[in-house]
Amino acid sequence: MCQLLGLNCATPTDAQFSFSGLQRRGGATDHHGDGWGIAFFEGKGLRLFVDCESAAHSPMANFLRQYPLKSTHIIAHVRKATEGAVRLENTHPFCRVLWGRHWVFAHNGDLKDYRPHLHSHFHPVGDTDSERAFCWLLQELAKSHASLPSVPELTLTLRELLPQVRRHGSFNFLLSNGQALWAHCSTQLHYLVRQHPFAHATLMDEDWTVNFAEVNQPGDRAAVVVTTPLTRDERWTAFAAGELKVFVDGLPLDGV
Amino acid sequence: MCQLLGLNCATPTDAQFSFSGLQRRGGATDHHGDGWGIAFFEGKGLRLFVDCESAAHSPMANFLRQYPLKSTHIIAHVRKATEGAVRLENTHPFCRVLWGRHWVFAHNGDLKDYRPHLHSHFHPVGDTDSERAFCWLLQELAKSHASLPSVPELTLTLRELLPQVRRHGSFNFLLSNGQALWAHCSTQLHYLVRQHPFAHATLMDEDWTVNFAEVNQPGDRAAVVVTTPLTRDERWTAFAAGELKVFVDGLPLDGV
Repeated sequence: MCQLLGLNCATPTDAQFSFSGLQRRGGATDHHGDGWGIAFFEGKGLRLFVDCESAAHSPMANFLRQYPLKSTHIIAHVRKATEGAVRLENTHPFCRVLWGRHWVFAHNGDLKDYRPHLHSHFHPVGDTDSERAFCWLLQELAKSHASLPSVPELTLTLRELLPQVRRHGSFNFLLSNGQALWAHCSTQLHYLVRQHPFAHATLMDEDWTVNFAEVNQPGDRAAVVVTTPLTRDERWTAFAAGELKVFVDGLPLDGV
Repeated sequence: MCQLLGLNCATPTDAQFSFSGLQRRGGATDHHGDGWGIAFFEGKGLRLFVDCESAAHSPMANFLRQYPLKSTHIIAHVRKATEGAVRLENTHPFCRVLWGRHWVFAHNGDLKDYRPHLHSHFHPVGDTDSERAFCWLLQELAKSHASLPSVPELTLTLRELLPQVRRHGSFNFLLSNGQALWAHCSTQLHYLVRQHPFAHATLMDEDWTVNFAEVNQPGDRAAVVVTTPLTRDERWTAFAAGELKVFVDGLPLDGV
């Protein structure tokens, strides 16, 4: 099993505190040492970093910890390989372009004997179940909409598609196109919203406390989605099994 | 005008020396300060770094200068914006997936009023002439071949397609899928092959001399393609206008 981290923010925010907790789980406080990756949207632009080294010991991860990249949408992943060798092309997050937008996807879970019919132009580069699922989702989204639909429309289409993947195994994932963050739980996922009035938070995996009141403005707001809670003194909400949530401007969208 | 750098190597090689010369041109010894990017293939996997800061002063570029990423195919670009704002989505190299392979493209030139008919699934994320040309090339390659063809077949198809873009303006580009490096010159491009017996080389833009005999094995070989020569004491060969060359295992392929 891998570990996921997603941020959806009302204003560009750096992920140093949360990424630091995740990074420790990549080979230091936990056993997810088979590579890691992180994607940052800047408007329509994207920075994607992937690495086969364990996140806890990767020079690139250490550089990113010190170098504050601010973004409204961030997806990170530390990998414990279940299917597919430890190679760069099997490292999450995966990225494709659809409707003139980058799409980024990271998966935690295990899809057994999952060989979807990929008859369109989305084909995997590596050999993971995860990238096959991502390609199938994009293929079906592209068939359902001729151009970029609204976030609620996309959410409805995803809800219709997900049961076809979920029946093959566990399928916790994060997906973003820089406009919204979709988070789907099949076995394990948690989230919280950090907003005014901001409080302290202390990482579980490292001796680091942040007073978010000191580093944020009142208009700032961030939704954080993770596999297991990153901090010991914040209130995390568990997703229900089978739940798909979509986050916009740092808040879950209700009713979609 | 921008500056291009491409490496095609018989064995995984780091680009620190050549990238260092290019980096200086990104805002220090030359005026290409509108962002930069570099892509490294590792087998089928890809690392792509893009940044809006000037290469000469970018913390990310400085980190990469110190951190040796070895690769058989590297494409780098420092940008002087002609069309499209200085934004991350307008920063070269661009990347797409076709036939289960990453494709990376960087352009130096200016295509006037170039609005190709993009009727398939390759659409630009940003608003540069360069990304439109890349999308059009991939669209036409995908129409010409149902699955990944051989390098000579791809080269023939590219040769047929290029006049349709070239008539819109200057179109120097580098293209790679991790198997070969295609380099097309419309106005300015140079190359050399570094191989046994290796010699010294001194950068033009920085006081740095390397003795390649000390850092290479006899089986190593690298073709280096650049806009203008990077070193003062190596023999660079200028491309002819309209010439397309393809490099495999550190050598230009003849007769294709």
